[in-house]
Amino acid sequence: MSVPHRAPQDLLDSKRSPLLVFSGQSNKPLAEAICKNLGIPLGRSKTEKFTNDNIIVHYEESLREGDIFIVQTFSTPVSDAIMELMLMIDAAKSASAGRVTAVIPYYSYARSDKKDSPRISIAGRLVADLLQEAGADRILTMTLHSPQVHGFFKVPVDHLSADIVLSQHFKNCVPNAHEGVVLAPDAGSIKRASQIARRLDSGLAMIDKERLSDTEVRPRALIGDVEGKTVFIVDDEISTAGSLVETVNIARGMGAKDVYVAVTHGVYTGPAIERIAALDVTQVASCNTVYVSPEKIAASNGKLAVLDVSPLFANAISNIHTGASVSTLFT
Amino acid sequence: MSVPHRAPQDLLDSKRSPLLVFSGQSNKPLAEAICKNLGIPLGRSKTEKFTNDNIIVHYEESLREGDIFIVQTFSTPVSDAIMELMLMIDAAKSASAGRVTAVIPYYSYARSDKKDSPRISIAGRLVADLLQEAGADRILTMTLHSPQVHGFFKVPVDHLSADIVLSQHFKNCVPNAHEGVVLAPDAGSIKRASQIARRLDSGLAMIDKERLSDTEVRPRALIGDVEGKTVFIVDDEISTAGSLVETVNIARGMGAKDVYVAVTHGVYTGPAIERIAALDVTQVASCNTVYVSPEKIAASNGKLAVLDVSPLFANAISNIHTGASVSTLFT
Amino acid sequence: MSVPHRAPQDLLDSKRSPLLVFSGQSNKPLAEAICKNLGIPLGRSKTEKFTNDNIIVHYEESLREGDIFIVQTFSTPVSDAIMELMLMIDAAKSASAGRVTAVIPYYSYARSDKKDSPRISIAGRLVADLLQEAGADRILTMTLHSPQVHGFFKVPVDHLSADIVLSQHFKNCVPNAHEGVVLAPDAGSIKRASQIARRLDSGLAMIDKERLSDTEVRPRALIGDVEGKTVFIVDDEISTAGSLVETVNIARGMGAKDVYVAVTHGVYTGPAIERIAALDVTQVASCNTVYVSPEKIAASNGKLAVLDVSPLFANAISNIHTGASVSTLFT
Amino acid sequence: MSVPHRAPQDLLDSKRSPLLVFSGQSNKPLAEAICKNLGIPLGRSKTEKFTNDNIIVHYEESLREGDIFIVQTFSTPVSDAIMELMLMIDAAKSASAGRVTAVIPYYSYARSDKKDSPRISIAGRLVADLLQEAGADRILTMTLHSPQVHGFFKVPVDHLSADIVLSQHFKNCVPNAHEGVVLAPDAGSIKRASQIARRLDSGLAMIDKERLSDTEVRPRALIGDVEGKTVFIVDDEISTAGSLVETVNIARGMGAKDVYVAVTHGVYTGPAIERIAALDVTQVASCNTVYVSPEKIAASNGKLAVLDVSPLFANAISNIHTGASVSTLFT
Amino acid sequence: MSVPHRAPQDLLDSKRSPLLVFSGQSNKPLAEAICKNLGIPLGRSKTEKFTNDNIIVHYEESLREGDIFIVQTFSTPVSDAIMELMLMIDAAKSASAGRVTAVIPYYSYARSDKKDSPRISIAGRLVADLLQEAGADRILTMTLHSPQVHGFFKVPVDHLSADIVLSQHFKNCVPNAHEGVVLAPDAGSIKRASQIARRLDSGLAMIDKERLSDTEVRPRALIGDVEGKTVFIVDDEISTAGSLVETVNIARGMGAKDVYVAVTHGVYTGPAIERIAALDVTQVASCNTVYVSPEKIAASNGKLAVLDVSPLFANAISNIHTGASVSTLFT
Amino acid sequence: MSVPHRAPQDLLDSKRSPLLVFSGQSNKPLAEAICKNLGIPLGRSKTEKFTNDNIIVHYEESLREGDIFIVQTFSTPVSDAIMELMLMIDAAKSASAGRVTAVIPYYSYARSDKKDSPRISIAGRLVADLLQEAGADRILTMTLHSPQVHGFFKVPVDHLSADIVLSQHFKNCVPNAHEGVVLAPDAGSIKRASQIARRLDSGLAMIDKERLSDTEVRPRALIGDVEGKTVFIVDDEISTAGSLVETVNIARGMGAKDVYVAVTHGVYTGPAIERIAALDVTQVASCNTVYVSPEKIAASNGKLAVLDVSPLFANAISNIHTGASVSTLFT
Repeated sequence: MSVPHRAPQDLLDSKRSPLLVFSGQSNKPLAEAICKNLGIPLGRSKTEKFTNDNIIVHYEESLREGDIFIVQTFSTPVSDAIMELMLMIDAAKSASAGRVTAVIPYYSYARSDKKDSPRISIAGRLVADLLQEAGADRILTMTLHSPQVHGFFKVPVDHLSADIVLSQHFKNCVPNAHEGVVLAPDAGSIKRASQIARRLDSGLAMIDKERLSDTEVRPRALIGDVEGKTVFIVDDEISTAGSLVETVNIARGMGAKDVYVAVTHGVYTGPAIERIAALDVTQVASCNTVYVSPEKIAASNGKLAVLDVSPLFANAISNIHTGASVSTLFT
Repeated sequence: MSVPHRAPQDLLDSKRSPLLVFSGQSNKPLAEAICKNLGIPLGRSKTEKFTNDNIIVHYEESLREGDIFIVQTFSTPVSDAIMELMLMIDAAKSASAGRVTAVIPYYSYARSDKKDSPRISIAGRLVADLLQEAGADRILTMTLHSPQVHGFFKVPVDHLSADIVLSQHFKNCVPNAHEGVVLAPDAGSIKRASQIARRLDSGLAMIDKERLSDTEVRPRALIGDVEGKTVFIVDDEISTAGSLVETVNIARGMGAKDVYVAVTHGVYTGPAIERIAALDVTQVASCNTVYVSPEKIAASNGKLAVLDVSPLFANAISNIHTGASVSTLFT
Repeated sequence: MSVPHRAPQDLLDSKRSPLLVFSGQSNKPLAEAICKNLGIPLGRSKTEKFTNDNIIVHYEESLREGDIFIVQTFSTPVSDAIMELMLMIDAAKSASAGRVTAVIPYYSYARSDKKDSPRISIAGRLVADLLQEAGADRILTMTLHSPQVHGFFKVPVDHLSADIVLSQHFKNCVPNAHEGVVLAPDAGSIKRASQIARRLDSGLAMIDKERLSDTEVRPRALIGDVEGKTVFIVDDEISTAGSLVETVNIARGMGAKDVYVAVTHGVYTGPAIERIAALDVTQVASCNTVYVSPEKIAASNGKLAVLDVSPLFANAISNIHTGASVSTLFT
Repeated sequence: MSVPHRAPQDLLDSKRSPLLVFSGQSNKPLAEAICKNLGIPLGRSKTEKFTNDNIIVHYEESLREGDIFIVQTFSTPVSDAIMELMLMIDAAKSASAGRVTAVIPYYSYARSDKKDSPRISIAGRLVADLLQEAGADRILTMTLHSPQVHGFFKVPVDHLSADIVLSQHFKNCVPNAHEGVVLAPDAGSIKRASQIARRLDSGLAMIDKERLSDTEVRPRALIGDVEGKTVFIVDDEISTAGSLVETVNIARGMGAKDVYVAVTHGVYTGPAIERIAALDVTQVASCNTVYVSPEKIAASNGKLAVLDVSPLFANAISNIHTGASVSTLFT
Repeated sequence: MSVPHRAPQDLLDSKRSPLLVFSGQSNKPLAEAICKNLGIPLGRSKTEKFTNDNIIVHYEESLREGDIFIVQTFSTPVSDAIMELMLMIDAAKSASAGRVTAVIPYYSYARSDKKDSPRISIAGRLVADLLQEAGADRILTMTLHSPQVHGFFKVPVDHLSADIVLSQHFKNCVPNAHEGVVLAPDAGSIKRASQIARRLDSGLAMIDKERLSDTEVRPRALIGDVEGKTVFIVDDEISTAGSLVETVNIARGMGAKDVYVAVTHGVYTGPAIERIAALDVTQVASCNTVYVSPEKIAASNGKLAVLDVSPLFANAISNIHTGASVSTLFT
Repeated sequence: MSVPHRAPQDLLDSKRSPLLVFSGQSNKPLAEAICKNLGIPLGRSKTEKFTNDNIIVHYEESLREGDIFIVQTFSTPVSDAIMELMLMIDAAKSASAGRVTAVIPYYSYARSDKKDSPRISIAGRLVADLLQEAGADRILTMTLHSPQVHGFFKVPVDHLSADIVLSQHFKNCVPNAHEGVVLAPDAGSIKRASQIARRLDSGLAMIDKERLSDTEVRPRALIGDVEGKTVFIVDDEISTAGSLVETVNIARGMGAKDVYVAVTHGVYTGPAIERIAALDVTQVASCNTVYVSPEKIAASNGKLAVLDVSPLFANAISNIHTGASVSTLFT
């Protein structure tokens, strides 16, 4: 994917000067890659913990009237990431920032988007309200668990998609991808799978699952046909890879020829890397919305690949800053 | 389905007396049926239009400290229905109602739950905000287009499901329903279809569609197998029945034996009745969340059936009023 | 009335570029006339109804950082007009508009400005709150039913008056207007009548009415003297013209020589045109805040006249956009 | 006027116990009269000023869960009265009051209800917002300058009228009041005058005034006929009595037989008493919404009379507390 | 200190039944002790983490109309504690709780109560806003770092003091405590020290410190006299005990006879226990607002003591629930 | 102190033109001095009182899009000062001001910053909420009674310190100030005293006081040593000077050589001037945040001195206007 270049001078000349990008602790490499794409240095700030475990954030340069972007992904430890982001937003507002955009590549609480059982919080909405209460003027994010989560926010949201990146990646890996089948691991991911299938001009299949209890889910059937075909599994995220293992095994059991996996958010917690290393797949790719350490990649038995989405974020930030349309950028 | 009976005396003895149920103009028969289930008369109010087309609502009895429920479904003319409901909520609050619950059997704007294209409103969220601004303290509704719409509201929502009613209806119609297949008309309805399939212990299939433009959608494939089987088509709503005709035709083309349709909201606008009358299906059933006139039923060539959900609403209102759990009622 | 010309280039050079004027469905001819006065094209947007009667609005050009004006009058169907306006405001805000001004030439709910009876909504305030909840940053309107309605809004309001237009119109029609009498149809319009009387340097009279019930009003007396004089009847609006017929008849009964009528908002609903065609008046004039079709004018027996207020709106928009004073424009 | 008696025991038995009435410094005699009507003691609180002129209010009894009414009229010094009321509301809320009703017999800022000139505050709305921000849950007031001011509040308002009291007073003073004429001092008071005229079954007249500048107003004409008749002048308030003197003089000049004056709010500031003492009227009556000292009455040359409205306030408070209808009380 | 006993039946008979106390993960032993004092069982809820580190909370009993208290102290990991509390509040509100009180024995962010340096957040205010946005109706807490933090909340706060407990503890340990000196470790704690000194009728001294940089603080002088005296060091919290070691050393260096330490919140992080074990003090006491494990106590070389404040919290909860005064309880 | 000069042209060239400074009635001399420092004329506005004691404010020039600063100190009559400021803010917002900054040199209600006794208002927070409700976008103030009051505001606050001015003043008066002792009149002022002491490199002492009742406070002891030394008394404000007299007497009683007093806010109410004239001090200095009349200075027996802080305010306003950092200005 080619991203149009924009000289830094343009950015500084815009109406809302200056453009400043800061980063929380959760994914500094991504924030730095975004700044590199923008041709500007990462803003100087310092996050510490007091001895009582309270977080304190200092900005080390003036923010007055600035157009501030704060990059923070919601990866482990998630509560710290959210608190740090809210402290950064609040500090920016009280330091007279002109506008504050929370850049949240992976908005983890999007998974809590409905009442699966009574007397729980729809946490995706709660966290949206908290970020706005803290002072966020707008949100930039990627691949929310469901597109409706966009509506949990009252402030404007720019919701980037990794679909082009993922489908292009499949095409790069498998020349005749259109002969394959995109497999949705469950009903919730069928829409995304269907969109990738159209991009690849390939087939589509889905695993129908049954929730037995709060924690147990049982596959009922594979709807569609994968026998003898290359299977592309797509989803929004992988955490422990437990569901992935199951999906791959079903695909293999139904005669899949080879299996490629690509997701937006590679969270990779607990036994994930070990499981992936042992899994009968050709490759598991994810975007750098969540930081994947070199150690994890090394331990994955050559399976893990990371796709860089910093150019998409950089372009979106640039367009937001200059008032250009974001929606027309990535289609 | 058997709904436990509750004597009206119980209701009047509760802490928040009195319980008062009012109705807008959109579905008075349902409001009356709910009141009959509750054993109380429908509250007296009057809605008129001024000569300049402004709506005016009067309550004709005192609401001070009362626990007020206002029944209004969002059917044609939808804008009038929403404006009348907001005027009723506002008038109730300023007349010192203790609590106001908006009972919206069919929340039509739930379909506008995401950004399908740039520069549109997520109207499902906007209308939720407006109802709350008007003063709604809580919401009671049924089968939102997507479960995430629940999270568009900040106030408590009781979200009833018609799944039991629909699946029981299929079982009543087709003794060996477990040999049939539930067919989802598109990816968006696969979750609902999957749940019905589990209740029937039947198979599952889905039509994969492709959006060609804002208004054109083309079916790509039928995922799964319907040949020689009874097909159950479920969806959240039918309006012009255009999509339904297509789904039935595909099912027929793939060899379906016979076809039963059941949806929560039978909106039936434009050519819907004419199309259904001519359609090769055994029956099309919907709940009385939207009022279906006897004329429409008569014109449907014996196809239309209406399922009464007033007992579910009555029970929910009763439990909300007395502080009992709603979530445990209908599982 | 001569309105100073402003070149479009000035508008595009202002700090908040670009200036964009959009229109709802209720009065596109006025929106187009305003744009013609401003020397800019009307913004491109599209309003449709889904098959379930939900409204959907698309903007077809970028609004990022723009200074957006949305022209929508509250004429039949009023509920659709309000809903469409709120959807347009919300869509504009979420599409990152810099500022959104709702231009409401005729704010019909201003008539619901007090508690005439218990347990009703002060809908003029409710609708004001809803528009602000939807995201309106400011309001531009004309001749509110009572000037206090201005205070129902928390956001800035520019409240234009048609008094100059109406009194100039009378002077054009009747050379020695100062020998006539301005007649207020009821106590509520006496202030407006008094102001016109001062502009004409004419006499003043009023009809004292008594409210018998919610819907019946009976004239008690004509305060003042109209015998042998030209009578100018002024009011804020005419809808069915029932009250107008009565006022004219009383004036005629008291010996008025001839009668001229001018109001800001010509709503003309129901039997209005038929009544006016048969009425013993020289002319009935209204401003184009509400669209009056050529058919209505043709059917009025030569009685209807329409006064163009688009230059006043264009000037107000221009001054709001450039930060010039609106209050000093029209005195 | 006979007001139904309610035993204090009833009040203490209601759902929201206890009922507590407190008073600010502006009109303690009225608060005490209200409490006497209710049969309860005035709540204990203490207001002081720190040496830096800051106000401090202490409640000297527990308010937890109580139904609190705070009586404060907006008379000189008005800013202190408003600040004290807001401090009392805030202190009550933070002391866990169940509900706080601001009882404002004379809401002076209701006069600032529209934009008479550019770049001023509509202070009637601002003060309404401030009271709600301070925590007022509802408002009880009497004879707002214009009825639209009701709509400046978002919380419920009970708006009492003194019309019955004033018209009964005229009937008591003048046996054949129906032969008299009610005279409105200006267009703004014509509606109130018209209502009193209907209650007396009398005639109606009005003075047409012209605003020459911000501070100068000139009478143009007396619309109607007062010659040889008893004239009843009614208005919402008298402050310096300058406008009253003018109205009386015009009435006298037009041949009025004798003149009676009655207003809701007798503010009587500056030269008011001196002017009234010298005025050619039979009597000037006002309600005790504003405290009138015995000294003023003594200096009025027998002209001043005070009408007690504490029974109306006591009944309204009682009905609000027990959830009975206030609107049906006083018609 | 003797705390009056209240039978559980009283609590269940109150107007807002039922009283339900739930606990987050941060200090369950305190929550259980509070419930034991109240004579009721701890409410059933379950907190888990999803595999992506998101927190999920379920309530396992109905909360409809209930008076809910959620006990959560802000100890390590603080961000998780705050997120869990907000999720519990939100879930309770959406499950129709009648009222939700956040019981926060140690509100750690109270230390961030002012702008010590530019471009930081006043996090004590931010967290207060977040808790209220999440739905907290009131707050119950103990010994805020500064009393002004109370004002960071808009909702009612009951702010308990541990002063009686701490001073009674000193009296128990040292019979002639009035001959001792209370030493404030810095200017910020002088008010608390002064209050304890009055309760003991003892002397007072303070260490004057100088902030060299963000992290470095240097003692300038000891104001007052401690030579040959028993020194009581009081503060609001101890975390790493670094400042405590310094204070003790200065006191020793100035000739203190023996040293007793008592603080409200024993956070004891990092090297705290090791430092205290080696410190030349007789005892270090803290309240159980923060959980101190038996392992820490065992490792403290007999220095650590824990004072039970659950009776104070139980009484406050009981009084809040029944509407009795909390302020008169503990003086 | 030297303040960098900024040409007025710079100010007019900034992005938010124009910069406009208006003044309430409380301290016009300071507002004029600030404008003189800025090189711009004071904005034209007019404040009057209606005959019913209502305040009315007119702006006499356009504010559209302007960057508005309103200077109003909270001195006697304080309630009028606050009401006038809120009316000015509201009028500015509704006149389309771009941003409104309330410049409050002396925020008197900062003293009400905590719950000293139950059932009072934390008025410092209430007034902060009211100012924000009225529309204040930011606050510029000096020496709040406690630094935590900053956190009572949600909008950005620039909190200037007079410490440099006060300590420089002491150094000017007493060449070897480092040999003196800074004396804090009570525990609440010890932090400020300690900071001044560090600037002077002098000693530090404090008077320990005991609150006997709401109004009575008794000194317990002087902590530290003042014998034979020059004593510098610093505090945030002096009102009746009662506490000052006591402090001076204690210092004298303990052998102080000579006494200099300097406070930020010289409120000087009641017997203050008389007391100071008779007091055994060399000088009492205060800043011109509160206006001190020439009569007061003349009556002070040569004791009173006024220090000009208008350059600090002018610089802060200039930096706020141009988006430069305020925090780096005054250290």
